[in-house]
Amino acid sequence: MDSAASPLLTDLYQLNMMQAYLDHGETQIAVFEFFVRTLPERRRFLLAAGLEQALDYLENLRFSAADIDWLKSTGRFKPNLLDYLRDFRFTGDVHAMPEGTAFFASEPILRVTAPMPQAQLVETRLINILHFQSLVAAKAARCLLAAPGKLLVDFGLRRAHGAEAGLMAARASYLAGFAGTATVLAGEKFGIPLYGTMAHSFIEAFDDEAAAFEAFARARPDGLTLLLDTYDTEAAARKVVALAPKLKASGITIRSVRLDSGDLTALAKSVRNILDQGGLGDVAIFASGGLDEDSLAALVQKNAPIDGYGVGTSLTTSADVPNVDCVYKLQEYAGVARRKRSEKKATWPGRKQVWRRLGADGRMEGDILALEDNAKPGEPLMAMVMQNGQRLQPAEPLAAIRERAKRALERLPEPLRRLAPEATYLVEIAPELEELAAAVDRRMQVQMAQSKEER
Amino acid sequence: MDSAASPLLTDLYQLNMMQAYLDHGETQIAVFEFFVRTLPERRRFLLAAGLEQALDYLENLRFSAADIDWLKSTGRFKPNLLDYLRDFRFTGDVHAMPEGTAFFASEPILRVTAPMPQAQLVETRLINILHFQSLVAAKAARCLLAAPGKLLVDFGLRRAHGAEAGLMAARASYLAGFAGTATVLAGEKFGIPLYGTMAHSFIEAFDDEAAAFEAFARARPDGLTLLLDTYDTEAAARKVVALAPKLKASGITIRSVRLDSGDLTALAKSVRNILDQGGLGDVAIFASGGLDEDSLAALVQKNAPIDGYGVGTSLTTSADVPNVDCVYKLQEYAGVARRKRSEKKATWPGRKQVWRRLGADGRMEGDILALEDNAKPGEPLMAMVMQNGQRLQPAEPLAAIRERAKRALERLPEPLRRLAPEATYLVEIAPELEELAAAVDRRMQVQMAQSKEER
Repeated sequence: MDSAASPLLTDLYQLNMMQAYLDHGETQIAVFEFFVRTLPERRRFLLAAGLEQALDYLENLRFSAADIDWLKSTGRFKPNLLDYLRDFRFTGDVHAMPEGTAFFASEPILRVTAPMPQAQLVETRLINILHFQSLVAAKAARCLLAAPGKLLVDFGLRRAHGAEAGLMAARASYLAGFAGTATVLAGEKFGIPLYGTMAHSFIEAFDDEAAAFEAFARARPDGLTLLLDTYDTEAAARKVVALAPKLKASGITIRSVRLDSGDLTALAKSVRNILDQGGLGDVAIFASGGLDEDSLAALVQKNAPIDGYGVGTSLTTSADVPNVDCVYKLQEYAGVARRKRSEKKATWPGRKQVWRRLGADGRMEGDILALEDNAKPGEPLMAMVMQNGQRLQPAEPLAAIRERAKRALERLPEPLRRLAPEATYLVEIAPELEELAAAVDRRMQVQMAQSKEER
Repeated sequence: MDSAASPLLTDLYQLNMMQAYLDHGETQIAVFEFFVRTLPERRRFLLAAGLEQALDYLENLRFSAADIDWLKSTGRFKPNLLDYLRDFRFTGDVHAMPEGTAFFASEPILRVTAPMPQAQLVETRLINILHFQSLVAAKAARCLLAAPGKLLVDFGLRRAHGAEAGLMAARASYLAGFAGTATVLAGEKFGIPLYGTMAHSFIEAFDDEAAAFEAFARARPDGLTLLLDTYDTEAAARKVVALAPKLKASGITIRSVRLDSGDLTALAKSVRNILDQGGLGDVAIFASGGLDEDSLAALVQKNAPIDGYGVGTSLTTSADVPNVDCVYKLQEYAGVARRKRSEKKATWPGRKQVWRRLGADGRMEGDILALEDNAKPGEPLMAMVMQNGQRLQPAEPLAAIRERAKRALERLPEPLRRLAPEATYLVEIAPELEELAAAVDRRMQVQMAQSKEER
């Protein structure tokens, strides 16, 4: 069974609430929005990602007979819920920001409008899908902004948090602008370009490093990359120079070499020199090994002669910010706006739209968070993507999402592009939205006062 | 298709190297070990976890006709590799530490002994499986040590990094000693006890909080938990007191209440008081909301009258340490010990065993990392679990792993149990292992000198 597609990939309380909603006939239309409450210093913006997988999930959500039998066997649920789940289809509407759009705190990137039990059930997995991909896309964007013009590749499957994390990190980083990934499955599933070199174990399996290089070159002549740092990086670079004419005689061209440890700037300069002196000026230098946006920026600043980078663990675990405070909150039920008022967790009620203004220079100037019906200056970012449980368009090609993400990064205000930790971006709250929030609060206060009097 | 079981969930360079190994007949027995190079301050020990899924992966690793066709379509691979993959079976041996064992830097928890192309292919996914579960088990252990005697539950599926991360975090935290999880699929797949309450959205869907409590209580009377912090926590506690007699008349007992925001210590004391005054001294208080081992320790220290905790995002993303520096390194090939000597990344060669000594008080005194054939004082931790691709035992029950983990936490030296960041644990390197490492270095130096002379 594919766990990732299981309808049981949800929190128990969703099923508990569904039972209670069904028992009490509370099955009217609910509106939930997914948004980030606050952004940390090291994520002054995020890139929307994961919508494709979210829509897949909603379209294909079914309970198998085995799922129903197991739920029944727990003794927790009544026949009315089991019957409801047996015939379950998601029949709601979805509005969303397209993937590759930059977004900020309080801005919804997805809205679900559906009968309450449906909208509630899908909370857990929708957050699970959108949070991770948006987080990795933002991390990838930071790497791209830190190393402009460099070829960046996702090397992080091994320390990603499981199978889906590795696969979806490849997708999220590619849509943000990475050149490709080492994860083979991402090539098969999403057509993402694959990159791969060789590991130290290959060199170590041979008694002689030069023999290992030659064996690898003859087996993998296309786009050949040789790994230099197993024993002594500079000595290995000289072996590459010595080997090149022999390979050339066999029609094999060395495309690049890889450094994976040590002082990358110093080694790259030295290796560049050895290669250039040896007539290998066309051989590129590729580096990897514990890199993130900070080390990339430092290498660029020091003019390290490195053409491309593999970014691994820091990317796929979003290591400095492995999670953000994102939620999926009830905004309206049965036609009435709703709002949570817990300490420090209050939310903006109602169905919302985000309007984005660009300046004369094409850069983003500010957003307005408004109620759906109140037009504001700028471009509206949320659009309907699913109606009555059916997608309105086929899946968007990754190439189109990459174009959007590229434009999004170009349009970011300069402090955000510089990854300045204090950078802020203006998200205004429309006055109608503030009024609605106040009205919801007044309504709740009246109700709470009434319920006190009744007692 | 189940992505988590795909043989393409690997790095491209593994396939590149397999091609080269096959072309050059380098298919002799290789020995790889998985271990952590260094531990960060906030993880002075880890708990081994994920072996069960690692063995599943090795036993079931097959390339489908569709996988082979796709690989062929990339134009990257020759017929000899495609034929090899078509018939692929993992036929190697595996030695491992049992799940639930505490381990430290440099100590292998898994060894693969198999023909080189097989041992190489499985590197990526084995690391992917073992790293994440061991990381979460260690995080769960820290929470358990910080809040002794409290009921801890995994609430973290929504912000885990994808489907598998959520599911396996439930498993890893349960084997470490958590009482259960909110993730329904973990109940179905692993029999882990499920916990679930209600969300704020449920309260908000009703016009009146007390009406929401009663509706939920009647629909979910067993193990009833009511959520207090949607509007005003203390007012909600008084509503619970007012509601209790009415529910009792219907045979419904309130088991607990949940706090999810605000100053948990102050609110818990106040709510405890309201409940006790209202004759609800048996109603437990459960808390959640951004908790980790530090906040748990602080709540315990302040004597917050809280009986159980839901730990979410910090657990399932291992938020303070979302990855550790773990590797799967070649230790021997064709009967000869091997070693990588890259700067700061040198490894201990050969097939190793870990010996653990307990003191008179039953606490761990120190480990010795030794070559497999050199018996040392204490208990050996690595044992063969798979031979010729076949498991030697059926899957170990989670209950047995939980027992082992419980003993492991009891046996930790006191500074480790206190989560002291400076705590160290003695891992000695056996003299025979040091000698082997020196011998490998001498052999490599001779070879490198010879290869220089040849040029």
